[in-house]
Amino acid sequence: MKSIHDLETPVVLVDLDVLERNIARMAERARTLGVRLRPHAKTHKVVEVGRRQIAAGATGLSLAKPSEAEVFAEAGFDDLFIAYPVVGADKARRLLALAERLRRLAVGADSVEGASTLAGAFRAAGRTLDVMLKVDVGLHRVGVLPERAPEMARRLADLPGLRLRGIFTHAGHGYGEETPDGVAKVARHEGRTMAAVADELRRAGLAVEEVSVGSTPTAREAMAQPGVTECRPGNYVYHDGSQVGLGTCTAADCALTVLATVVSVPAADRAVVDAGSKTLSSDPLRPHAAGFGQFPGRRSRIQRLSEEHGVVVVEGGESFQVGERVRIIPNHACVVSNLHDRVIGIRGESVESELIVAARGRVR
Amino acid sequence: MKSIHDLETPVVLVDLDVLERNIARMAERARTLGVRLRPHAKTHKVVEVGRRQIAAGATGLSLAKPSEAEVFAEAGFDDLFIAYPVVGADKARRLLALAERLRRLAVGADSVEGASTLAGAFRAAGRTLDVMLKVDVGLHRVGVLPERAPEMARRLADLPGLRLRGIFTHAGHGYGEETPDGVAKVARHEGRTMAAVADELRRAGLAVEEVSVGSTPTAREAMAQPGVTECRPGNYVYHDGSQVGLGTCTAADCALTVLATVVSVPAADRAVVDAGSKTLSSDPLRPHAAGFGQFPGRRSRIQRLSEEHGVVVVEGGESFQVGERVRIIPNHACVVSNLHDRVIGIRGESVESELIVAARGRVR
Repeated sequence: MKSIHDLETPVVLVDLDVLERNIARMAERARTLGVRLRPHAKTHKVVEVGRRQIAAGATGLSLAKPSEAEVFAEAGFDDLFIAYPVVGADKARRLLALAERLRRLAVGADSVEGASTLAGAFRAAGRTLDVMLKVDVGLHRVGVLPERAPEMARRLADLPGLRLRGIFTHAGHGYGEETPDGVAKVARHEGRTMAAVADELRRAGLAVEEVSVGSTPTAREAMAQPGVTECRPGNYVYHDGSQVGLGTCTAADCALTVLATVVSVPAADRAVVDAGSKTLSSDPLRPHAAGFGQFPGRRSRIQRLSEEHGVVVVEGGESFQVGERVRIIPNHACVVSNLHDRVIGIRGESVESELIVAARGRVR
Repeated sequence: MKSIHDLETPVVLVDLDVLERNIARMAERARTLGVRLRPHAKTHKVVEVGRRQIAAGATGLSLAKPSEAEVFAEAGFDDLFIAYPVVGADKARRLLALAERLRRLAVGADSVEGASTLAGAFRAAGRTLDVMLKVDVGLHRVGVLPERAPEMARRLADLPGLRLRGIFTHAGHGYGEETPDGVAKVARHEGRTMAAVADELRRAGLAVEEVSVGSTPTAREAMAQPGVTECRPGNYVYHDGSQVGLGTCTAADCALTVLATVVSVPAADRAVVDAGSKTLSSDPLRPHAAGFGQFPGRRSRIQRLSEEHGVVVVEGGESFQVGERVRIIPNHACVVSNLHDRVIGIRGESVESELIVAARGRVR
């Protein structure tokens, strides 16, 4: 059997034992709480990983863009949610084609301007599109504030061609919290706020079938809040340095690592590996920026990146040799996936499979 | 003829008129000074753009990794330099295969440990590999310090299977300079230091055929220094927000832009476009970090990025509408190229061609 020592570097490794454990744990949490799990596939973008999530009990997948959803529809997934405010006539045509092949489809919306184009296209085709209203529980990216949700939900529900399925949020501001307690507080607020918004919508006579929360750091607590019906974590399949930093997991739970080679040791306190921003991305470590990659068991980190160079500041007492191979835990696994056409599935040091990152680069 | 208004967003546009002007200007500068131009193709990764550079007078191309060089060798380019300390037996085998199909090949080196594996492979095959010694003129990434260059050059030249072609550097620290004068000073130091190192090597009895400098901000001044024989700028074909910030060019010289759509305007001071870090990368603006993308003619910038969202902080007096299409000048064009399989060649608002980013994602 081929070993990781036979692989050319840099290369992305996925430890399948850790992956399976991560998938099982989140599925178990959702099952215990009676919440539907709809993982965000952006983290892996791999059909086979999505299939493992469904096999473990997920009801469907979340995606960010129609082109990502097309990849999973093509592979036979039949219940997809595009967790993004989809806008434009060209996108509406793609959604129509998706709706015709899927058992269930929903998309995000946070404005009448955006949703009305989709509504018009579906109405003209004699179809109805499920939409989920995006609610902003504190990230301040997209979505309406909770107090504006009833009005916007009503306006979306009134658009012929649309059906309001429910509400969704993403508490990405949890990534800025400095302690696990801070993250848990964000998570409880996320779940409770969404449940309260849903209740208000129902009092206003609107049907709210789905109350959906998200994000790997907040998932376990947010889905425990009464009234939450669905959870959409993505990163948990792989985890990464930021999840370790946030206290979501330990380094042993990181399924995705990068195998690299030391190509230069130009000074006693500096080594350079062949993995730069083209391999690791330049995303910062969360919650506190601290370099661009960690080596399990060593204090030295990649402190500077250019496209093909990772510059390690060598801590006292540690050393790196030209030609030495090193394993790196990246800051952000999702963006690493998006940089590579293939990742290598391993068990221990044995290479088991090559996984095609089929939805890589699908930005439209 | 198809127009940019027909394109789905987000999409990367390359203005071919600006591209051709950028290529012509750098070629003219090198020709006037009698310096060979060997552009770094990492910026575009596009075979057709490389052909335009050769047609304008470039002697060959620079690449970062053997897998990138393989793409250009396959397309018929016959004189390539891998400007990177290539390390390892697997890479040595690929270099051997490359050497057999190319008229000229050279690779970078900065250590005997790294170079000896390549030397052994070439010697065993009865061939000789040209190497260029990397010299560190201030970036402190890879390369030997000028004072150590004579000793390392001697050791590389003495390895059977290798031929020392010359020396090269990359003054990437110019990207941290706050004024054009500061950049020019780095550039003169770059050229003069390399010329002085070459003289010292020659006094020690070593043949130094090539004295190669690089980087778009420093190229014009560095190649004007006596003794410099070759220049390897990359970014100049496209330019980007960082080059504007450094004073290398104006916004009108930026050939690569991203066309995006406003998908949400959740607050008066916030708009969100459908281009996030998967489209623009999370590379910071140089020389001073200031958001992740600029809109020509507007003061508002993309101030936060997630994978599919660019969050614009809307400056007073400006406004963005859901569905509106906007052009973005990214911080760093090279990394944008690496995120997309295709870019669209335009003239004015007319779509002229689709350019395949053939060497995208080639990290090995």
